[in-house]
Amino acid sequence: MKIICLQENLKNSLNITQNIIGRNLILPILNNVLLTTKDGRLQVSSTNLEIGINTWVSGRVEKIGAITCPAKALTGFINSLPNKKIELEVKVNILTVKCENYKASFNCLSAEDFPIIPKITDDSLIEIKNSILKDALLKVVGAASSSESRPEITGVLFSFGKKELKLAATDSFRLAEKSIFEIHKKSDIIKSLIIPQKTVQEAARILGEKTGETKICLGASQILFDSGDVQVISRLIDGQYPDYQQIIPKEFSSQAIIERSELLNVIRAAAVFSNKTNTIKFSLSDGEIEVLSQDADLGENKSKLAAETKGKKVVIDFNYRYLLDGLGNINTKQIFLGLISDASPAVMKPVGDESYIYLVMPIRAN
Amino acid sequence: MKIICLQENLKNSLNITQNIIGRNLILPILNNVLLTTKDGRLQVSSTNLEIGINTWVSGRVEKIGAITCPAKALTGFINSLPNKKIELEVKVNILTVKCENYKASFNCLSAEDFPIIPKITDDSLIEIKNSILKDALLKVVGAASSSESRPEITGVLFSFGKKELKLAATDSFRLAEKSIFEIHKKSDIIKSLIIPQKTVQEAARILGEKTGETKICLGASQILFDSGDVQVISRLIDGQYPDYQQIIPKEFSSQAIIERSELLNVIRAAAVFSNKTNTIKFSLSDGEIEVLSQDADLGENKSKLAAETKGKKVVIDFNYRYLLDGLGNINTKQIFLGLISDASPAVMKPVGDESYIYLVMPIRAN
Repeated sequence: MKIICLQENLKNSLNITQNIIGRNLILPILNNVLLTTKDGRLQVSSTNLEIGINTWVSGRVEKIGAITCPAKALTGFINSLPNKKIELEVKVNILTVKCENYKASFNCLSAEDFPIIPKITDDSLIEIKNSILKDALLKVVGAASSSESRPEITGVLFSFGKKELKLAATDSFRLAEKSIFEIHKKSDIIKSLIIPQKTVQEAARILGEKTGETKICLGASQILFDSGDVQVISRLIDGQYPDYQQIIPKEFSSQAIIERSELLNVIRAAAVFSNKTNTIKFSLSDGEIEVLSQDADLGENKSKLAAETKGKKVVIDFNYRYLLDGLGNINTKQIFLGLISDASPAVMKPVGDESYIYLVMPIRAN
Repeated sequence: MKIICLQENLKNSLNITQNIIGRNLILPILNNVLLTTKDGRLQVSSTNLEIGINTWVSGRVEKIGAITCPAKALTGFINSLPNKKIELEVKVNILTVKCENYKASFNCLSAEDFPIIPKITDDSLIEIKNSILKDALLKVVGAASSSESRPEITGVLFSFGKKELKLAATDSFRLAEKSIFEIHKKSDIIKSLIIPQKTVQEAARILGEKTGETKICLGASQILFDSGDVQVISRLIDGQYPDYQQIIPKEFSSQAIIERSELLNVIRAAAVFSNKTNTIKFSLSDGEIEVLSQDADLGENKSKLAAETKGKKVVIDFNYRYLLDGLGNINTKQIFLGLISDASPAVMKPVGDESYIYLVMPIRAN
C-alpha cells in the first residue's frame, strides 16, 4: 500500500475515527484504525464492535492495499506534523509515514484480522440537515439511562412517523422528547428503533462539525448515519421501549410561564443547600413560585420568582439536577411549567416551540 | 454585624479567597471564610495555615462585627445572585443574606476561633508591576520539586539583589531561573527566601487578574504579596537552597539556534514513540538536529530540524516532558540550545532575552 495525501485531511479523519477506540487488552486490533485504499482514496475506519466509523481521505493512491495501525499513536504523530504532503507506505506490516523532515515507522497488524464493519446498502429512511439533527440528538441523549438493568432504556428511541422523526429518552426519573419536522426527504416506512446512547453521542459529535445533510439508513440489525464523507454504523438495542406517551400529562392543575434565566439562578441558589439529597421544594401559587431548600448543618434558602401562573397551589419536591438538565436543553427566553400534584410528573416546555417536552418525576416524601 | 454591598464585589472577593480552602475534617473552621467589618468595609479572609488571603469589599457598614461562614456554600450562593445590592446580617451565629427576592441563612462559626493570619507591617522589599511579576512566577514555578524528601527545593527561591529580583526553582532534573529587572521601587536589603510552590501559584493566579503593582514585604517568618485590594501572606520554607549557580554551564561544546515552534512539533512527534520511558534522543551536528525515539512494540521515529549550529557533534537523551515544560516557558520565536556532553546539563534560553534560563539534565544510559 502506498498513498500520498495532505496532513490536514488525514488528521481530520483520524480525529473523527479514533474517539470510539478505548484500550482493549483482549482484542488489541481494536486499538487500531483500519487504513484501506478504496476507489482512489484512503478509507480510515474504526470499530468498538458496537459502533463503527468510516471516513475517507482524498489523495493519490500509488499502490493499493490495507493495514491496521495503532490509532492513538498514529493520531498523535500525524497531529504533530506540518500541513504538508504525507506519504504512507506499507511493507511487511510496517507502515512508514514521511512528511518533509519527519519519518516514523509503525508496527501494524494485518487488515485481514480487523472485525468487519457491516455495510448498509439500503435506501435512506430519512434525510435531515446536520445542524438540526445534532441539536435534536443533544436535547434528548442526556436523559437516557446509564443502568444496564433495563437495557431498552439505555438507548434513544427513534420513531420514524409519516412526516416526522420523534426522538425520546428516559431513565424513569425524567423523560425528554424532541420532534423533528424539518425533513429533507422521508421514505414511507413507519418504524421505531432503539439506538445506543454512545452512538447518539458520537453521531452528534461528528455531525456537529459538518454542514450538509445526513441520511439515516437501516440494515438487518444496524443503523447508519451517513453524511457523505463520514459514516457512523451502530448496532440497535433489542427490546420493547416503554409506551411513554401515556404518562405525558395533557392537562395541569397548575401552570406557569417563567423567565428561563431567572429560574436557572433560583435553582442554582437553592442547590447550595441541597447537597445531601439534591432536593429542592417548589411552591407554585398565585403569581409566584417559591423555591425552598435546607440542610441541617449548613442552613436554608428561600427564593421567590414572579411568574404568570394559572390554577391552584401545588407544592412539589424535585431533584434539582434533573431540572438543570432540562433547562439546559431549552433555549427560549421563557419556559412553560405544568404541574398536577406532588406525586405526578411535571412538564417543562419551551414557550412557542411545541417540538420539545421534558418531564420530571417529583421526589416523594414517603 | 450588618453590611450592604454589591453582589459583584462580594463575588470577586469570595472567588479569590475560597481557592485555597480544601475540605478540612479535623479543623472545620478552615472550611470557612472570615467576614469582618473593618474601616467601613467588609474584609474577607481565608487561610489553610500555610497561606492566608485577605480581600476587601466596599459597602455600607450598618453594624460592626465578625463571623466565619462555610466558604464553598457562600460562594456558590452569591455566584447565583443577580448583580444587585446584597444585605448581610449576623444574629447569634446565623448569617442571613438577602438580595432582591433571594434569601438564605447560613449556620456559622464564631470569628474568635478562626486562626490568626499574621500581620506584616514592615516596609516593602520591592515593588513590581503585576503583569511582570505574574509572568516571571509562572516561568519558574513548574520546575519546583513535588517530593517532600528535600523540602527546600519544593519552593521557589526569591533572591533580592541590589537591582533585581531573581527567581529560581528546581526538582534536580531541571532548573528554571528568571530575573526581573523592571522594578518600581527596591529597598537596600539583599536577601534570599524560599517560598512554597502553592503560594507562588496562588500569587500568580490572583495578581494575574489585576492591573497595578504588587509590594513584597517581609515579616518574622512570613512573606506578604500586597496588591492593595488583595493580600497573600505565606509561611517561608526553612533550609539552605542548593547553590545552583555553579551548575549552570557558561560554555558549550555544541550549540544551536532553533525555531521554537518547529522544535515543539519535532518533540511532540517523537513523544509518540517514547511512552514507557519518556526518552528521546537528540543528535546535534552540522546545521541539523536529529531527534530519535523508539518503542519496541509500536515502532520508531526519526525527525530532522534545520538549525544554526556551532561546535562538535553531541548525542544526548532527554525526558521529552522536561523539554516541553521548558519550551512552554519561552515565548520568543527562536531558542538557544547549548550542550556540553551526554552527561552534562543542557541549557535552553530565549534568543534575545538574557533574563531566562532553563536547564535540563540528560537521561544517562547506565
